[in-house]
Amino acid sequence: MRSNKVKDRITTGKTIVNAWLAIPSSYSAEGMGQAGFHSVTVDMQHGMLGFSDALHMLQAISATPATPLVRVPELNKASIMRLLDAGAYGIICPMISTADDARALVAACRYPPIGERSFGPARGLLYGGLDYVAKANDVIMAIPMIETLDGVENIDEILDVTGIDMIYIGPNDLAFSMEGSLEFPRSESEAAISFILERAQNKGCPTGIFCSDVGEAKRRVEQGFNLVTPGNDFNNLIQSSVSAVRGVLGAYTDSSGLSNDGY
Amino acid sequence: MRSNKVKDRITTGKTIVNAWLAIPSSYSAEGMGQAGFHSVTVDMQHGMLGFSDALHMLQAISATPATPLVRVPELNKASIMRLLDAGAYGIICPMISTADDARALVAACRYPPIGERSFGPARGLLYGGLDYVAKANDVIMAIPMIETLDGVENIDEILDVTGIDMIYIGPNDLAFSMEGSLEFPRSESEAAISFILERAQNKGCPTGIFCSDVGEAKRRVEQGFNLVTPGNDFNNLIQSSVSAVRGVLGAYTDSSGLSNDGY
Amino acid sequence: MRSNKVKDRITTGKTIVNAWLAIPSSYSAEGMGQAGFHSVTVDMQHGMLGFSDALHMLQAISATPATPLVRVPELNKASIMRLLDAGAYGIICPMISTADDARALVAACRYPPIGERSFGPARGLLYGGLDYVAKANDVIMAIPMIETLDGVENIDEILDVTGIDMIYIGPNDLAFSMEGSLEFPRSESEAAISFILERAQNKGCPTGIFCSDVGEAKRRVEQGFNLVTPGNDFNNLIQSSVSAVRGVLGAYTDSSGLSNDGY
Amino acid sequence: MRSNKVKDRITTGKTIVNAWLAIPSSYSAEGMGQAGFHSVTVDMQHGMLGFSDALHMLQAISATPATPLVRVPELNKASIMRLLDAGAYGIICPMISTADDARALVAACRYPPIGERSFGPARGLLYGGLDYVAKANDVIMAIPMIETLDGVENIDEILDVTGIDMIYIGPNDLAFSMEGSLEFPRSESEAAISFILERAQNKGCPTGIFCSDVGEAKRRVEQGFNLVTPGNDFNNLIQSSVSAVRGVLGAYTDSSGLSNDGY
Amino acid sequence: MRSNKVKDRITTGKTIVNAWLAIPSSYSAEGMGQAGFHSVTVDMQHGMLGFSDALHMLQAISATPATPLVRVPELNKASIMRLLDAGAYGIICPMISTADDARALVAACRYPPIGERSFGPARGLLYGGLDYVAKANDVIMAIPMIETLDGVENIDEILDVTGIDMIYIGPNDLAFSMEGSLEFPRSESEAAISFILERAQNKGCPTGIFCSDVGEAKRRVEQGFNLVTPGNDFNNLIQSSVSAVRGVLGAYTDSSGLSNDGY
Amino acid sequence: MRSNKVKDRITTGKTIVNAWLAIPSSYSAEGMGQAGFHSVTVDMQHGMLGFSDALHMLQAISATPATPLVRVPELNKASIMRLLDAGAYGIICPMISTADDARALVAACRYPPIGERSFGPARGLLYGGLDYVAKANDVIMAIPMIETLDGVENIDEILDVTGIDMIYIGPNDLAFSMEGSLEFPRSESEAAISFILERAQNKGCPTGIFCSDVGEAKRRVEQGFNLVTPGNDFNNLIQSSVSAVRGVLGAYTDSSGLSNDGY
Repeated sequence: MRSNKVKDRITTGKTIVNAWLAIPSSYSAEGMGQAGFHSVTVDMQHGMLGFSDALHMLQAISATPATPLVRVPELNKASIMRLLDAGAYGIICPMISTADDARALVAACRYPPIGERSFGPARGLLYGGLDYVAKANDVIMAIPMIETLDGVENIDEILDVTGIDMIYIGPNDLAFSMEGSLEFPRSESEAAISFILERAQNKGCPTGIFCSDVGEAKRRVEQGFNLVTPGNDFNNLIQSSVSAVRGVLGAYTDSSGLSNDGY
Repeated sequence: MRSNKVKDRITTGKTIVNAWLAIPSSYSAEGMGQAGFHSVTVDMQHGMLGFSDALHMLQAISATPATPLVRVPELNKASIMRLLDAGAYGIICPMISTADDARALVAACRYPPIGERSFGPARGLLYGGLDYVAKANDVIMAIPMIETLDGVENIDEILDVTGIDMIYIGPNDLAFSMEGSLEFPRSESEAAISFILERAQNKGCPTGIFCSDVGEAKRRVEQGFNLVTPGNDFNNLIQSSVSAVRGVLGAYTDSSGLSNDGY
Repeated sequence: MRSNKVKDRITTGKTIVNAWLAIPSSYSAEGMGQAGFHSVTVDMQHGMLGFSDALHMLQAISATPATPLVRVPELNKASIMRLLDAGAYGIICPMISTADDARALVAACRYPPIGERSFGPARGLLYGGLDYVAKANDVIMAIPMIETLDGVENIDEILDVTGIDMIYIGPNDLAFSMEGSLEFPRSESEAAISFILERAQNKGCPTGIFCSDVGEAKRRVEQGFNLVTPGNDFNNLIQSSVSAVRGVLGAYTDSSGLSNDGY
Repeated sequence: MRSNKVKDRITTGKTIVNAWLAIPSSYSAEGMGQAGFHSVTVDMQHGMLGFSDALHMLQAISATPATPLVRVPELNKASIMRLLDAGAYGIICPMISTADDARALVAACRYPPIGERSFGPARGLLYGGLDYVAKANDVIMAIPMIETLDGVENIDEILDVTGIDMIYIGPNDLAFSMEGSLEFPRSESEAAISFILERAQNKGCPTGIFCSDVGEAKRRVEQGFNLVTPGNDFNNLIQSSVSAVRGVLGAYTDSSGLSNDGY
Repeated sequence: MRSNKVKDRITTGKTIVNAWLAIPSSYSAEGMGQAGFHSVTVDMQHGMLGFSDALHMLQAISATPATPLVRVPELNKASIMRLLDAGAYGIICPMISTADDARALVAACRYPPIGERSFGPARGLLYGGLDYVAKANDVIMAIPMIETLDGVENIDEILDVTGIDMIYIGPNDLAFSMEGSLEFPRSESEAAISFILERAQNKGCPTGIFCSDVGEAKRRVEQGFNLVTPGNDFNNLIQSSVSAVRGVLGAYTDSSGLSNDGY
Repeated sequence: MRSNKVKDRITTGKTIVNAWLAIPSSYSAEGMGQAGFHSVTVDMQHGMLGFSDALHMLQAISATPATPLVRVPELNKASIMRLLDAGAYGIICPMISTADDARALVAACRYPPIGERSFGPARGLLYGGLDYVAKANDVIMAIPMIETLDGVENIDEILDVTGIDMIYIGPNDLAFSMEGSLEFPRSESEAAISFILERAQNKGCPTGIFCSDVGEAKRRVEQGFNLVTPGNDFNNLIQSSVSAVRGVLGAYTDSSGLSNDGY
């Protein structure tokens, strides 16, 4: 079975830089897979993506060196299984707040007797190889997102669930949940992030986190995270475009009411 | 009829910064339309786009302040007319090398009695407004690309064709045509670009040009071009992503064989 | 943030005429948005629509004066949030029968600390503007459908749920639920409609209702409803087409076994 | 091979009412096929349609009693053959102005030794049946559009081309070509329509025409046309919607600036 | 209402050969509908299909003699209702383990007063005919999959649920559930299959089963099953292709490392 | 640049077994790429494919060991260039009848100074690698189809055109062109095939041919062809399905009027 680059790099202690795709295009997905990221996550929660888009994007990523992951919109076993059948090598699942949630996620990601994944490997076989069914339980990652106050409070029980391959933190929803807003500074939710990281490291569980930009990603690596996501494709595209327009106009800028002010 | 921001800015002597879309996504297209560009060009020649993609992208751009243009794959009257019906406010047509080519382009973009555009305004009516058919000939732009040796030699006859609204230069194909390669320096094709610009300015015809990046775009504005295109969406996305990965890894770089070397 | 025409007209006591889209096409959606409706609802329950269709339709409606709403197939928080991220300015949710259902709907439609909507505004930002996250809770509407016997019986508790912006009645499913059939006259379910309307007006909650045609829509406006939906796009298209065929054939009609008899 | 309802009704002297599809949806296409039309034309010239849309629409029409036709965007042999392979039972081709044009159209629609259609029947076999290749030359219709001054002047030579199954008039482009505008009255182009009709009847060639509405369609039937098209799906949908909004608002109309004024 | 070939053949004691579609293509779906199968099942659980694919495939199957069924990914009422609205004549639902599950499935498939299906027949009306709503409860099939240990143990209660039209066995997931692996021999799960079959026959409930190939399908018919599915389209295509490559290469085989070894 | 398996195997004298795709699905395309074929041809002439389908299929094939080719619908330079930009490693072009045709094909497939291909490598860069533009002229194949009487008569001039990488014979259209029908025996067109093969071998030009099944493919290999195509995916799927149905029914066959008789 084709190896999982995320697992491999964790084993050897190397940092993983992960891409995050919200644009529903297999062309940009393939380009991102060639841009140097170790893994590429198709975001079906806040990305503008249907199942067919995800399928085409997973196929496109398969032609690149990056390992394909999917962030699902919710803890729904049937849709998790479909995306694994479509070739995802890991499922990042939002809003995991209890050990029961975490167990349900693991069960959806593993074939019996360990889990409850239904047989019908489909594209998994094409991407992974002919030994896919035999080895999928060892290769595919179950990755709960910790992004609620309950998730923080239950972090030890969640980390104790057999089969959790990584914890992934959603700092914005965590701030929403703990501070009631997205404003900075975020003392409580930042403390929670440190706490989660410390508990995970203690129990030997790898950690990942979404970052707003490269600067934050570097800080998170220094803080000890194994995997970092430096923003998503859409925002990076638009921000570099806003910069490009301003760069070109420069002194030539006029009062034409560009809509990019303050984007 | 909704006005054409490209024409309006030419009239008042303002620079136009134009986006170039190769990614087949209405989501990224809408984002680009909000990023500050004055016009957004859907590239059906080298972009990875079918007609339905173009339709969705033109609709998405319609909700933004940017004026939608289309670069067609070839001088084909039927397909030019379809894209105008889909709401394009200007057609950039590659490989216009003679006055006859230019006349055919203009004829495809204009309703009778001036041109030969077939009646059936479709989305044009939705984007432009109920007076679309009456005013389309004044608002919609016919923009030949000059990118062949023949085009350079015939530039005066092309500029004399009634109805040409702008000349757009494709520097890479021009270099291919005149130098036989894309290597720098490109003395002959650069001289041709200056010559075309000078002839167009002489005859009062606006000019546009594709640029590889912001730096070139600024130089072309200084050189006198009215409209500049600072790269396309795909390349800008991938380049900013390659930078992001390198920015994050920094000292943490390892010998993992990233595929982005030298992209 | 771009304003919500439905909310604005309610404030000033004006009737809202709402379109209902079952045809999976961004082209017809854009046309409907230009046809004079104050709001346009993308129907993901009985419409023949996937997520990508809805995205393209919401983008197309964004270029028109009409406010975009979505009728979701069920009370599922994750899918409600995705459609808000895609730009819906209101969610009409079927089968709300209890105050708990209504609270769950509101929670899915509001960011913390009021609700539980996950952060990742995506297209919401493009349609609403840069202040989208700050103002979305005030602009976006949560609209439960009352269409079950339980919903009627629990109407007061449902109306008391904080954050309900309008009640929308589904008369056909209500008749199914209360009369056990769709046949007329529907004395019980009609009485329930009057009762719901009266309770809502009493508590100052705006009301909307699906209608089979223009005639019923006018009667419902006279009855006191704020928002009416005069049929859906598909049925209106087919009925006007059946009329057209009959109009043309007239005396020329023959026994060719048209399939439209009794449509 | 499944029979061609258009040919059958011509043989028995019955009028054909033909639908015209510009909306890219297989759902509305299937509804139109059930609405009583004898044939349904997928419009790839001014319709907002790509090849995949056309394929899905032709499949949907195949489940209805209506015979599927396609109006192609131009006289291009390869694209005509692809649409026949996709199951079209007739090709309506715009801008046929000479006998050579007409011969090229017929050649694209017929297998050797009569024509030049390439072998690869694809969906034709599924729709037509296992004897498709043997009988297609007899069943599939080649229908040139006469809509230019040249087409009028060359009408006799065009009608003499072997294999022409019907002449279809495009009154708007004909007015554009002959009057230089679309304004009424259109004395010259109306006279040309009568002339074409008379010549076709004289030579025993069936005739069809696009009409703006039911009233015109009835007049054209009385004038002697075999096949009439009472508007397209998009316009009929939007006009019935504009009427619906006005019908509902009636006395309740306010000065809200509906965009449908004068549509 | 158009009849249901599966029900009809059960009534007359005839075997049903059922196709299983995992390829997201309306073209291959239509071909399969013409290949002699009595029913064709669109597999939305392990097939690579989104809703729009399913819609196009159901439309394509409607033009063939085969009756369209859908295997849904999970017991979700809203998505079951959408697929019925899209024209499915039967729902095969995975993982039905209790009588409550079975009742929920039946409720989703039936209009009131028997069930809870929401009104909005959409494509059902186009495929079934104008009496669709009146007769759908009698024509459309609710088909639970028995594929868990719990399902086996609760088989009598499940069979006693009013409205179950057939039991469909998933032998692979049953083996996973009962044996903990997919290896042969599968003594326990085979015994369970015989037991389920015997109980169903006893209670007069028809039975169906998924088979890995033609040989197994023949054995299952002999064993007493009413409906058999001889593999899915994707696997049959790939296996016949692997055979074709090997057939051609034969003695010409070389050591080029074909990836089909052991497929 | 990634190597071209077709060219590589020709160099070493090995047979190439080529797949032919008419089903518009990236899933079946990826499966075919894993089935052992050395090359996989996306058929845009008689396949039911639009550009977006082709893009997704080429991306899917890129994740397999097979080399991607495209059969275009016609000799159109712009569409050939777009498919090369989308990642095709060879263009099979129908109806090449003269040396001028062949030169135009080669020109569309090669960058200057050899040819006229426009710069904008797009996906070519992703599939081929960063040295794509420098090496594409050596790797990408121009493959004219010989399938007309003129093509046979002009075979020597065609073979003399610099840049022709292989001759591909379309036996059915050749029979149509030379015999006026598809019936067997085909003495004239078979003689022409032998003649073309002999002339090509004489001039050192590789040869390929479409075959109706495995048996014919083996005979063509023995006859001396380098590349053979044993039928297309759609026909192989349907034929194996017809066999499956018959295999299952066997003695159980009834008079139910299966539509597959004589397929």
